[in-house]
Formats: sequence, structure tokens, C-alpha cells
Amino acid sequence: MTLLLGIDCGGTNTKFLLAREADGEWSTLRRDHFPTPQHPQALSEITTHVKEFVGPDEPDAFGFAVPGIIDECGGVIACSNVRWLEGTAPADAISAALGAPGVVVNDGAATARAEVVLGAARGHADVFVLSLGTGIAGAHVVDGEIRRGAHGAAGEIGHVSLGGDRLCSCGQHGCLETFVGGTQLGQRWGALTGAPAGSATARDLIEAAVAGDARAVAILDEATTALARSVLDLVAIVDPRIIVVGGGVAQAWTQILEPTIAKARGAATFHHVPPIVPARLGMWGAAWGTILAAHSAAGLEPSPA
Amino acid sequence: MTLLLGIDCGGTNTKFLLAREADGEWSTLRRDHFPTPQHPQALSEITTHVKEFVGPDEPDAFGFAVPGIIDECGGVIACSNVRWLEGTAPADAISAALGAPGVVVNDGAATARAEVVLGAARGHADVFVLSLGTGIAGAHVVDGEIRRGAHGAAGEIGHVSLGGDRLCSCGQHGCLETFVGGTQLGQRWGALTGAPAGSATARDLIEAAVAGDARAVAILDEATTALARSVLDLVAIVDPRIIVVGGGVAQAWTQILEPTIAKARGAATFHHVPPIVPARLGMWGAAWGTILAAHSAAGLEPSPA
Repeated sequence: MTLLLGIDCGGTNTKFLLAREADGEWSTLRRDHFPTPQHPQALSEITTHVKEFVGPDEPDAFGFAVPGIIDECGGVIACSNVRWLEGTAPADAISAALGAPGVVVNDGAATARAEVVLGAARGHADVFVLSLGTGIAGAHVVDGEIRRGAHGAAGEIGHVSLGGDRLCSCGQHGCLETFVGGTQLGQRWGALTGAPAGSATARDLIEAAVAGDARAVAILDEATTALARSVLDLVAIVDPRIIVVGGGVAQAWTQILEPTIAKARGAATFHHVPPIVPARLGMWGAAWGTILAAHSAAGLEPSPA
Repeated sequence: MTLLLGIDCGGTNTKFLLAREADGEWSTLRRDHFPTPQHPQALSEITTHVKEFVGPDEPDAFGFAVPGIIDECGGVIACSNVRWLEGTAPADAISAALGAPGVVVNDGAATARAEVVLGAARGHADVFVLSLGTGIAGAHVVDGEIRRGAHGAAGEIGHVSLGGDRLCSCGQHGCLETFVGGTQLGQRWGALTGAPAGSATARDLIEAAVAGDARAVAILDEATTALARSVLDLVAIVDPRIIVVGGGVAQAWTQILEPTIAKARGAATFHHVPPIVPARLGMWGAAWGTILAAHSAAGLEPSPA
């Protein structure tokens, strides 16, 4: 039996997942989440939380997901939605506190790995996994292997440009993330409703749309048009067999994904629009993915008989 | 010694290339090109040309490149720039006439294969090859293998949308091809200058821009802005180590690619914009690629010692 800890440091929440692996079967021991701290001592606050969460248990290894680009030594190169992570090597402090080895992985890649091994993409050879959360992450998985690109930066579908003036967290204007990223949806709704800065969320917007607020409906209509456009462009370039969609914003499947899929299918010409299905691991996908990565990196996988 | 024939049936010209392979070394025996016929008997006209071109030589195999999507049996599913190819299996008629086996390959994939094996991408493990011709084709090559996607339709970067009203050959509006495809550039220049329909070419436009015509300069400025945008979006999704650019329009490297590269580098934020270099095989890339594909399909490659 092996004990693994997954930490998913997202733009809004940080999630902890303690899992047990025995004979290739995985089970959840416990899990928790709390708002991601956004101050200079955030990493030590997270380390303290980790110690409390783990308690007397002793994980054999852990994984740490970040919504950004990571170098080969686990250093965070770019992380626009959690700025304090930039220039840190977040596994080091936690590894020292836990006395266990850790790996740092991109959240999109982690979510993809989890969906491929344990979730909705299981058994498919060519998968694009899209995470619609605070920001947007993606990963292309072929034959079980995540295509990270030449510099570990592939899959950044949140930062393809759809035009318009809105500034994105990445420094460009008009990225997909400015249309359908959770932070931007919440900010736009807050600006329209006069909510105190930072208090309105994408969930508020979606609830208002469900209640019939025309302004909210218009924002979602623009968001799903943009997402449909990006799905078609992705299909043109990558041509995946299946697209799996997870993340907090995708929880509103009826409001976000159903219209997106209808618009993409309606606008397709030469495209093979593949099945577009919800991620099975929900908001825990990236945490599960870090656990799988840690398990693999620590050499804990059973050797072939 | 092996004799191979490459046929590249492009939107504007069809190219014939007869090549010899001996001990892994390739050489050109002869080559020719002529305008692609656009009538219902076009395929039999091409077959006649093939017979004349080959003369007394007897190729061991041949390849046929089409600017479209091909099924696993060599049938052409979609081919917006050479409509009569749709629904045909073009290798069959030529194979019967030549008495040699043939393969049908996508032009973007063929160009990519040639540049990877014989051209500018040789020795690189992760390459995106972009062909700017009548239309726009692309292919992502990883470890020498072309990523054709789940339905053989990957790499279609010409049909990502940049907005605007212009109708594309694929049925969408605002594709990259409507900004920088050779046909569309020529048509727009013809409409501005009042040239007889179909007579103005992208070359005319580029010559006018070089001569200082402000209208031509503005069209190229819009074209290179669009291409730069698509290069950045490609880098975000695929993250290649090098981008190789060929095709007729890319012959105007100073007018098209230099400003594109400058704009892409200037607008990059998180992106790793890789080296962007000219294809080495020029307009013969796709023909060489079909030769390599035919050589491989016919089992003519030397077996490992």
C-alpha cells in the first residue's frame, strides 16, 4: 500500500487530496480545499496547511500542480494567475516539511493525466483535456503521453486570441480566457452590477443568467461563442478523438458547454468535431494528476511481473 | 537504384518530379510544372501529362499530393481549392496508366515530411511546417512522425478564424487563408485594381507593394498581422522547436515572413517563439514528400543492416 498526497494550487482554491494505492486500485483517504493565499508568505502558509492536513499520516510522495509553465527542475517560470509562484520551486519547502519527495506539474497536464488514467478519457488514444477554471488550461494526450511541446508550454488554449480589448492575465489582449475564464467572468459581472471589487464570481453570473437576467445571458452568449470558435480552431490544428472538459466553470455544463457544443457543431465545415464530454474527476482532476505524476516519479508503480 | 515519381496537385500548379534513390542518396532526374486543370476531365488530363513526363522511364512507385483531407484508402474527402478531386481516388487512374503503385498524401504532410527528411527541419525533433501557397497547409512533426490527428485532419492552420467577413474556401468566414492565402491575396488585389476576374495574383500584389503602392502595402500589413497572430496561437497550443515555412507566398520572405516574425516576436508574452526559417525545398517540397511516402509505402527503403 502506498500513500500519496496531491496539492492543486489553483488561481482561486488550493485543494489537498490524500489517496491510497493498493494493487493498482486508487481510493480517496480524505480531501480538503481552501482559498489560495495571495501574499508573499503564501508558500509557507500552504506548507503549514499541508502539515495540518496530513497529520500523523506519512505520504510516500506528493505532487504540486500550478497553473503555469514549469522548468525541468520544478521551478515555476510563468504563472499569471498565482503571481507569487513565479520564480519559486514550490516542492522544495513542502518536501522538507513532509520528508517526502515531490514533483511540480502543470495543472492542465495534471488534469489531463488524471482523466486519461482514471477519468472520462480512459481508453482513448487521442484526447484534448480542457480545464475551464479561474484561468483556462489544456493538454493534448496521445497514447497516454501528454504532449508538452518543445519548451513544456503546449496546450495553452486559454491564450489563443479571439480579438477585443480585454487585457488577459498573460499580458495579451482578447485571449479566450478573457471571454470564459472564471476570474474574468466574475469581474465583468461585478463591474455591471456594481458589486465590491473582487466579490462577484462566475457562479453569481451564471445564477443570474439562469434567473433570466438579460445582461448575464448576453455575457454567457459571448463566452460560449468564443469557446465554440476556439474548439473549432483546436480541432483544425490538433484533430483529437475526444475532448474532455473540466474545471469550475465547466460545472455549469448546461449553461456553458451545451451552447458551446451546439455552436461548434453548427459552425463546423470541414471539421471533425469529436465528442465533448465532462471530466469525471471534477474539481479534483489536477490533484489526482499530481498524485499519478508523483507515484510515477518516485518509482512507486508496480514493476511488470 | 530506385526511380520515384512525385506529383503535387496544387490549387494553382501541378508539379512533377522524377527522382532517383541510390544507397540512401536522392537526386533529381527531371521536373516540370503546369497549371492545374479545373474541369471535370482534369484527372485524365493529368494522367496524360504524367505519361508524357515519364516517357520511357519506369518509376517503381509514385506519390500524389492533394491540398485536402484524405481517407485511409487514398480517397479525397475534402479539397476546397481543387474541387474536382473531392470523391476521387486519384492514385488509381495514374497507377493503371503507369503500372506502378501509388499513394495519396496531404500536401501539408508531404511538405513537412520532405523538410524533415531532406530539408530545413532535418535533425529537429519537434517541427511545425507551414505551407503558404494558393491555400495554407500545415503539419506538426514530432520525432520524425507527422501528427495527422484522430481523423487525418490535423495541421489545418489555414482554417483557424481571425474574424472578419471574407468567405474562405472551406465555408467558414475569416480564416487565416482569407488573409494570406495566395488566391485570396490575388483576388483582393484584382478587385482593387479592376483587373479582369482571376487574372491578378499574389505576386502582382507583392510587386505593387515593393513598388510602394499604399493599397498593396496595407493588404500585406493586414496579412502579416494575421499570420503573426496565428503563429502565436500555434505556439500557445503546440509549442514547436522550429517552424519551417514554404509555399509560393513564402517566396516573398522579405515582404511576408520578415514582418510576420517581427510582429510575432513583438506581441509575444509567455510564448516561446521558436526560430522561423524558410523551407529548403521551395515549391518542390510536397512533390519530394510524396516521393518519400511512396518509397516507404512500396517497401523500397533499405532494411536495417
